[in-house]
Amino acid sequence: MMSARIVLDYNRMLAPNLGGNGIHPELLDTSADRFRAAAAVVDQWRRDGRLGFYDLPEQGESVDQINRFVASKRAEVDDVVVLGIGGSALGTISLHNALCTPGWNELRPEERGYLPRLYVLDNIDPTTIAPLLDRLDLRRTLVNVISKSGSTAETMAQYLIVRQRLAEAFQDDDFRGNLVFTTDPASGLLRQIAEAEGITTFPVPPNVGGRFSVLSPVGLLPAAFVGIDIAALLDGARAAVERCRSYDLYQNPAGIFATLQFLADTELQARLHVMMPYSDRLYSTADWFRQLWAESLGKRYDLAGNEVYRGPTPIKALGATDQHSQTQLYMEGPFDKTITFLTVRNRERDLHIPPLYQNDDALAYLGGHTLGALLDAEQEATARALAAQGRMSMKIELPELNPFTLGQLLMTLQIATVYAGALYQIDPLDQPGVELGKRLTFALMKRPGYEAPPAPEPDPRWIVR
Amino acid sequence: MMSARIVLDYNRMLAPNLGGNGIHPELLDTSADRFRAAAAVVDQWRRDGRLGFYDLPEQGESVDQINRFVASKRAEVDDVVVLGIGGSALGTISLHNALCTPGWNELRPEERGYLPRLYVLDNIDPTTIAPLLDRLDLRRTLVNVISKSGSTAETMAQYLIVRQRLAEAFQDDDFRGNLVFTTDPASGLLRQIAEAEGITTFPVPPNVGGRFSVLSPVGLLPAAFVGIDIAALLDGARAAVERCRSYDLYQNPAGIFATLQFLADTELQARLHVMMPYSDRLYSTADWFRQLWAESLGKRYDLAGNEVYRGPTPIKALGATDQHSQTQLYMEGPFDKTITFLTVRNRERDLHIPPLYQNDDALAYLGGHTLGALLDAEQEATARALAAQGRMSMKIELPELNPFTLGQLLMTLQIATVYAGALYQIDPLDQPGVELGKRLTFALMKRPGYEAPPAPEPDPRWIVR
Repeated sequence: MMSARIVLDYNRMLAPNLGGNGIHPELLDTSADRFRAAAAVVDQWRRDGRLGFYDLPEQGESVDQINRFVASKRAEVDDVVVLGIGGSALGTISLHNALCTPGWNELRPEERGYLPRLYVLDNIDPTTIAPLLDRLDLRRTLVNVISKSGSTAETMAQYLIVRQRLAEAFQDDDFRGNLVFTTDPASGLLRQIAEAEGITTFPVPPNVGGRFSVLSPVGLLPAAFVGIDIAALLDGARAAVERCRSYDLYQNPAGIFATLQFLADTELQARLHVMMPYSDRLYSTADWFRQLWAESLGKRYDLAGNEVYRGPTPIKALGATDQHSQTQLYMEGPFDKTITFLTVRNRERDLHIPPLYQNDDALAYLGGHTLGALLDAEQEATARALAAQGRMSMKIELPELNPFTLGQLLMTLQIATVYAGALYQIDPLDQPGVELGKRLTFALMKRPGYEAPPAPEPDPRWIVR
Repeated sequence: MMSARIVLDYNRMLAPNLGGNGIHPELLDTSADRFRAAAAVVDQWRRDGRLGFYDLPEQGESVDQINRFVASKRAEVDDVVVLGIGGSALGTISLHNALCTPGWNELRPEERGYLPRLYVLDNIDPTTIAPLLDRLDLRRTLVNVISKSGSTAETMAQYLIVRQRLAEAFQDDDFRGNLVFTTDPASGLLRQIAEAEGITTFPVPPNVGGRFSVLSPVGLLPAAFVGIDIAALLDGARAAVERCRSYDLYQNPAGIFATLQFLADTELQARLHVMMPYSDRLYSTADWFRQLWAESLGKRYDLAGNEVYRGPTPIKALGATDQHSQTQLYMEGPFDKTITFLTVRNRERDLHIPPLYQNDDALAYLGGHTLGALLDAEQEATARALAAQGRMSMKIELPELNPFTLGQLLMTLQIATVYAGALYQIDPLDQPGVELGKRLTFALMKRPGYEAPPAPEPDPRWIVR
């Protein structure tokens, strides 16, 4: 199993490799105690029952239930549609893009192993949703409505629309068999509806927040539908939990990741944390991480109630593509960023670059290599060039991309997030800053009991028409 | 035509609407002269022939050539594949996502009006490219190789692979009819190959840099293949050029956008410039803008040769989706961001939310509205909530989303970029920071004449395995 472990190389975060910029190893050494204290705080949160995501690898029964449900539906379902937003969507998108063949929904059924297409509707733009609903055969579509609270405005609006379409497609009550809800096991509107109408449900454990729910049925149910080995995913997550038990900073990958990012932000004003996979399939994982890091760490108050306005800004980028978009800024702009590369050592496919035009210098060097070797060379070259400019980067390498390694990565980053919360001394589990926007939305939608304070009329001087 | 203009509302960038945070109107007033000087610099650059993108609306002949070429190929082509990266890809992706039906490549031919599918291969990940090449019918695939220099490593590697596959598919020289190059009109390797082998080409004007090339044949040729009215796109761009002639800051949308962002960065340390469309179809436009803004403004040296390490960081976000991912940070994190919302006033499609569950408060308020109205309410609520926290935002509204309005938006943002360059007193047209990475890539790929300085061996103490 050793060789199947993800590897974190942070040499290029450190001053000896950055011409004096970057984090001094002595600072990291003296931060080991700080990390130990943070890890103790996290363990206390865990004992307090606040960190349910740690326990998600131990859901053998859920896995069986999910796999049985999926098997029972497989013959009837051509398309799975997830209605969900934020934490109810990003994990599923990450799993699907990482572990299924690219262009999945375009493949012929036999190319998909007769597994269903998967659509994750994580927005409410009618110009996306209307054409999709027009072309789906709803009688052969399973709709997975996901909302922990059971009342997320966007998801419930989608649900009302899709429910009516389903009812029209069936013209009897059988349409309920095409619905499955993933929601709180006891409370909330979706739970009530399910019980009243006999709709199948899967639970989101109450102590698992949306952004930490990818390894709960939120992510596992759609993943199982598209053939992902969800038991192996949980095995990987379990291995990460084991590995991240250590209070020794240098042995704990989540600990070192969190501590480096924390020090880069607070000691070196590197507040922009770029995650840059050199892998198309991991780009959505960077997007998933973006929610995890931003929503967990962006906080006005610290745990002692002081106003701190904290929070690094996570940014997703894609290698090699963004070398032609963002690297100029990363090389020459302000010293305000760290770059975390995600790489895959052994790819399941590669392409040979044929040795054509061998008399032309600008092409001859390419022939005989693989396309994967070029991608790897670009990643290494970019990291070296950044280091030569005194720019911090680190690399998380997956030995290969499969459910076991992805499970490790996702769990490691979740643990790193709560460590970072403890280091910043903020609560990584709440999101009080989104309440005002929700209330104002209700008011603008004329929901009884919600009123918006009058907004000033826009001054026409400050509008260019 | 007045009502078809894009509208920029920046009330919420200004202190009177942000409880004292934000930009003071007096500062903006005193910046009018500064803008006037910047506009004069830009006009000088234009007279010097450096800003070819301004002239792209006047390519009637190119439009005719492109449309004729597309018409001549239409019956033979099921798939168009673009090989290109950075500025050779982002504009095309933006046009395609904004102006074609979502899920385009999944539609049946009759749903696409028998227009071809479009694949833009803007990365070199073999796990994406190999499965796509396996399933394409290359005899009915047109491959558009796009590289201004004619030697971009990623694009040329793709070309070598695809060329060999094409040759195998045809088993004679006819495969050359399935290639079309977009490149410099006179120099470079692609130009040489085209001339030697009789391959059709379209020119990228020498004074149009990659990131400013969306309205050249780089973007227009693929756009025309998928049925986009490229003449209307250029009409919109022309209208924007006209409108942005003004030296009056308050009349010039590109000027006010650039000046506000510049002041937010330099006076208020708001260096993160988020572009957040409330429209799935404009998300790729935010990605296109990300290159434009980062690569143009991220510079180590100013025009006088001083070391300045300048450059705001552009960030793409998507509303309403990212309300459930990034808004917590935008509301409560550091005061280091501006948010530019992109909105569409009249949508081509909407969906009615049916009034189900009318006895439940948490659902009843949704019924009777449209999904688009909910999306609009969320945008307005988010902007109001941000303002209540003293956070700057502005809104660019498209009256509707069509080639004419998108052409305006793209050209306005390009002009804003060169204004911003003049305000920052840096050269917005070069990208010296990417050269080192390219040379190191060549060295790692063993291209003769390139050697990498020895990199230190990674210290195993700083690797977690």
